[in-house]
Amino acid sequence: MEAQGQLEFDGVPYLDGHASDPRLLGWMQGTPPAPERRVQFGDDRFLDFPQIRWSLSHMRELLPTVNVWRGRGPSHTLGTPSEADMARIDALAFTDMQGRARTWASSLPDTYTDGLLVLHRGRCIYERYFGALQPQLPHSCFSITKSYAATLAAKLVHEGLLQDTQRIPHWLPEMRGTAYEDATLREVMDMQVGVAYSELYADANADIWNYARAGGLRPRPSGYAGPGSFYEYLRTLQPEGAHGQAFAYKTVNTELMCWVMKQVTGQPLAQMLSEQLWEPLGCEEDAYLTVDPLGVPMGGGGLHASLRDLARFGELMRREGDWGGRQLLPAAVVADIRRGSDPAKFAKAGYTLLPGYSYRSMWWVTHNELGAFEGRGIHGQRLYVAPKAQMVVARFASHPVAASAANDPITLPMLLALGRVLA
Amino acid sequence: MEAQGQLEFDGVPYLDGHASDPRLLGWMQGTPPAPERRVQFGDDRFLDFPQIRWSLSHMRELLPTVNVWRGRGPSHTLGTPSEADMARIDALAFTDMQGRARTWASSLPDTYTDGLLVLHRGRCIYERYFGALQPQLPHSCFSITKSYAATLAAKLVHEGLLQDTQRIPHWLPEMRGTAYEDATLREVMDMQVGVAYSELYADANADIWNYARAGGLRPRPSGYAGPGSFYEYLRTLQPEGAHGQAFAYKTVNTELMCWVMKQVTGQPLAQMLSEQLWEPLGCEEDAYLTVDPLGVPMGGGGLHASLRDLARFGELMRREGDWGGRQLLPAAVVADIRRGSDPAKFAKAGYTLLPGYSYRSMWWVTHNELGAFEGRGIHGQRLYVAPKAQMVVARFASHPVAASAANDPITLPMLLALGRVLA
Repeated sequence: MEAQGQLEFDGVPYLDGHASDPRLLGWMQGTPPAPERRVQFGDDRFLDFPQIRWSLSHMRELLPTVNVWRGRGPSHTLGTPSEADMARIDALAFTDMQGRARTWASSLPDTYTDGLLVLHRGRCIYERYFGALQPQLPHSCFSITKSYAATLAAKLVHEGLLQDTQRIPHWLPEMRGTAYEDATLREVMDMQVGVAYSELYADANADIWNYARAGGLRPRPSGYAGPGSFYEYLRTLQPEGAHGQAFAYKTVNTELMCWVMKQVTGQPLAQMLSEQLWEPLGCEEDAYLTVDPLGVPMGGGGLHASLRDLARFGELMRREGDWGGRQLLPAAVVADIRRGSDPAKFAKAGYTLLPGYSYRSMWWVTHNELGAFEGRGIHGQRLYVAPKAQMVVARFASHPVAASAANDPITLPMLLALGRVLA
Repeated sequence: MEAQGQLEFDGVPYLDGHASDPRLLGWMQGTPPAPERRVQFGDDRFLDFPQIRWSLSHMRELLPTVNVWRGRGPSHTLGTPSEADMARIDALAFTDMQGRARTWASSLPDTYTDGLLVLHRGRCIYERYFGALQPQLPHSCFSITKSYAATLAAKLVHEGLLQDTQRIPHWLPEMRGTAYEDATLREVMDMQVGVAYSELYADANADIWNYARAGGLRPRPSGYAGPGSFYEYLRTLQPEGAHGQAFAYKTVNTELMCWVMKQVTGQPLAQMLSEQLWEPLGCEEDAYLTVDPLGVPMGGGGLHASLRDLARFGELMRREGDWGGRQLLPAAVVADIRRGSDPAKFAKAGYTLLPGYSYRSMWWVTHNELGAFEGRGIHGQRLYVAPKAQMVVARFASHPVAASAANDPITLPMLLALGRVLA
């Protein structure tokens, strides 16, 4: 039984979406903020709940970042949702995976939503912001970053600049003697690499935290003697099991893929995102990427974008790469992602809430009745593209639990319900 | 005698403006950059020459920052200079303070210019970029930040929200027992405070470096036990001499002034700059401010702006606060700055290259034939407003020597020469 103002996940109580509103809690309010209201990089609590409800909309104030420029052109218009559309969607009823009857509107605080936007046939029919997020503020995309990066990688494969059957040392000889010595680029892009590396966010000893410290994304303990950068960390990774057998979600794969892309194109990721997406899409705001101590952007999770600009990328994918008559992405690249990969290999990873899914070029492919595919990031970030419903949903959140499994029981049925209405 | 490819300052040889071009030297080029090409915060060499030629255009990649939003409106147009105007200015001859005959064009590398833009009657007649700077990239303004902040403070005084005859503890009781206990806001704004604090950049033991470490702008030694933020540092400052007697340039005054502004308005500096200048001026790009570990922006020197946007602020000052019929700054505020303060108090500070100057609301007032007043920042940053020539010059640079005295012998005669032509 959850107490008033609380929600429980795995038996642990947290302030609920209303009670944890960062404006209410006063994070970083005051001149200077009182010690108990501070969100600081140095104390390593900036991603703790509930301060994460502030920090995911303010990450550049805590970490070094590189700009993703929107260019000088006019912004692409999404339109303004009508009150009738908003009310209709807010009232939408659905049943969550635990069998609880819910409405769309009441589900937003229960998924710690910071912002949610729905496009139908390219027109904005729903847009709301909560807590620390504002329309112009970039919010952490976390692993939706991977979908951006791998879509650009798939484009390079399509163009012949990369061959996805090649093994990694073809581009990066320094990766000989690591888990990636005999992994192909395609195995990396589809996360079917046998590498000893754990990404269980709830485990304080998981490798993901060593990776974060190497990249300067978490404070390093005094006397730290570990790797000083992402690349240095990647060179320490050892094999565990065979490649190509099963889906195994590991952020280091994306970082390695981005290293290959940089090696081949000579272009920093921020420049590729700017020239190939932000500028031609007519994004409204600059985005940014967190960078490591060598200036290498975190391709595995460092992108921060405005909600509208995230939705625009989803819309480009829904339109199969066509943007007002200009083909920004080859249609074949989008089609390949939508087809997904082998669900049998995905099933081995044990995501019980995601039956029938596959994973292709760092998108999560539902294979559901809407033909939907998703970009997914920890703490509730989501870009849901449902071609058969002509729907795109972009959501930012600051859920207390990193793993998407904590919000999927609400998120997936609510998105499916709306998609069915719009289909 | 200077060797080929070198310039000497105080007998120390440095690579000249051409030889130190950061593209030529390959700073941060490579995947990853080779150790000798890295510019990193952690090694505390990121402001050393010649890597500073890269870092002043890339500061956000090294430090946490807060955005100064340009809003959603169209940008204000400056126009494109004609080739004839550019050639005419490039060929302009003048004699520097050492008696050497120079041309405008050849002076640019000798002052390590990263970008220079001239407005005449509001129209751009000259614009060039060098090295790491590009038109859309924000560059360090360093202490031109002070001119922005104090102009907004002077506006608050004009509007009656601040009274510049009040003493600092009126707003900040925590400053009792410090040098600021009996200093008035006006003494702070005009830098006539008797405070024990040294800002001799060439001295590694100067207080400015302790201030920088407190604010997280330089790495802290292991076991660091000094102040953890700007505000904490300010509370340590002790009196030295009387207030109101002489100009004494000390960045901590600006930081304190910004603290008062935040206390009174409740608005962060980034928001004030956005709403009162960036948005109504129609700036082209977002700007940013470096922030300390409590998220407090460095009002004394943390602003980074594009060259064109810097020029727009100068143009607003030239137009006495009027921007296309909208009075963004009270004309009386600009007039007060242009009038300057008492040159006799300025003279006591011993700036031999700046005879007859005074300092008012954190602008350097020349009292010269052009009625010019300047925003000045270390390493060559300059915003020169010359009302009688209807001229504004914005310059970014990355000079090896921090003190403006290293470039004034060229800069001041060249700006005066152009102003005389345009007057």
